Amino acid sequence: MNTPIVILVEPQMGENIGATARAMSNFGLDRLRIVAPRDGWPNSKAIEMAAHGAFILEQAQVFETLSQGLADVQYLVATSAGSRELEKPVVTPLEATAIMRKELAHKHNIAFMFGCERSGLSNDQLVLADVIATIATSPLNPSLNLAQAVAVMAYQWSCSVNEVKPPKPRGMRASKVAITQLLSHLEVELEHAGFFKVAEKKKRMLRNIHNTFIKASLTEQEVRTLHGVINALCDTKNDQKAC
Amino acid sequence: MNTPIVILVEPQMGENIGATARAMSNFGLDRLRIVAPRDGWPNSKAIEMAAHGAFILEQAQVFETLSQGLADVQYLVATSAGSRELEKPVVTPLEATAIMRKELAHKHNIAFMFGCERSGLSNDQLVLADVIATIATSPLNPSLNLAQAVAVMAYQWSCSVNEVKPPKPRGMRASKVAITQLLSHLEVELEHAGFFKVAEKKKRMLRNIHNTFIKASLTEQEVRTLHGVINALCDTKNDQKAC
Repeated sequence: MNTPIVILVEPQMGENIGATARAMSNFGLDRLRIVAPRDGWPNSKAIEMAAHGAFILEQAQVFETLSQGLADVQYLVATSAGSRELEKPVVTPLEATAIMRKELAHKHNIAFMFGCERSGLSNDQLVLADVIATIATSPLNPSLNLAQAVAVMAYQWSCSVNEVKPPKPRGMRASKVAITQLLSHLEVELEHAGFFKVAEKKKRMLRNIHNTFIKASLTEQEVRTLHGVINALCDTKNDQKAC
Repeated sequence: MNTPIVILVEPQMGENIGATARAMSNFGLDRLRIVAPRDGWPNSKAIEMAAHGAFILEQAQVFETLSQGLADVQYLVATSAGSRELEKPVVTPLEATAIMRKELAHKHNIAFMFGCERSGLSNDQLVLADVIATIATSPLNPSLNLAQAVAVMAYQWSCSVNEVKPPKPRGMRASKVAITQLLSHLEVELEHAGFFKVAEKKKRMLRNIHNTFIKASLTEQEVRTLHGVINALCDTKNDQKAC
């Protein structure tokens, strides 16, 4: 059966990458992606900590940027304490893994994403997620070790063995790269139209629009339609230019 | 509220004792007992790995023998892959923590027990338990790291305790009429732009765009932003008209 990908974003310590691989292998996950590991790759400390999970490190994919690591991902769960700024659904690990079971019925690449040890996922990284899974922790010590967080999510995944009825087929979900391209298309046109009057607000506005796209769970067809919508509004403009 | 005790039996590595304390503190457990730690006590590597869970190490109780460590324990859950020899009920972590919740209602000292890294709990140790909790693992790598096993049980415990967190407040959801008005705004502009080349497809295309808006669970703020996006693209056009 197809299983979720685990994506570590800018992990700092090899030990945690290794412990992640070990926990993944304990719970039947084997698709690891590592984005911009601080200490390069391969990492001997990771191999040491992985124990019998070392095979996962051997077949891990390493990317320089998060957008490369997410390019073909169709559904993304960010593991995070959450964001006060972003409009993003927040669920428990139990709920997240139930959703992922359903998503896997008609998508190939669904993923868990984990941020770096020091600070977790930034808002710019969180915005890419379809949903945020928050592991409830004690206020006395809310900060989970990275590999422990992976272990908890992987454990919860392995518990979600209840058979899930596949939902009725729907259009193929757009990939993250398709969404990013759509956003870029819109950004260019909005820039041209003078939409971003206050320069320092631009990044945040784009992030919010990006989030709206993500929330819509856009299909490939919908992305094409939205490109068409933007083009149509701008073609008129260009026609007028030509005149 | 009273919480379960965590008992590590003959742990070998200070790092795992520390990571155990960290995971315990993450999930609201604070009663640690250590039986015959291989490298003595205190252990600097344990303190290092415990991070903000170090307070649990400071108040941990250390015993020379398991029978001393268990003397006042009234209900004991052994975490183990199980035993072929012993007649002992085997339950999942979910079932184990549900039982423990009930036991805590009328007992003070209930405990999780974990064996050493190399070989887990022996039959002589397992026999002391009321029940065995087995964390199901993959045959590819069945052996869990000690602290990961503690984290999984502590997480499962916290799930059985924590009331489901209310989802964080989010922006006011846009009304259906606000969505319809947004769609109308876009329709007018698309009509003007000649987007609907085939008249009989217009209704269906608008319905699909409408559906995209609905799927996005738009907030009032997002609807305002999207009106702004459409206006921005059209203002340029109008400016050019004016010229």
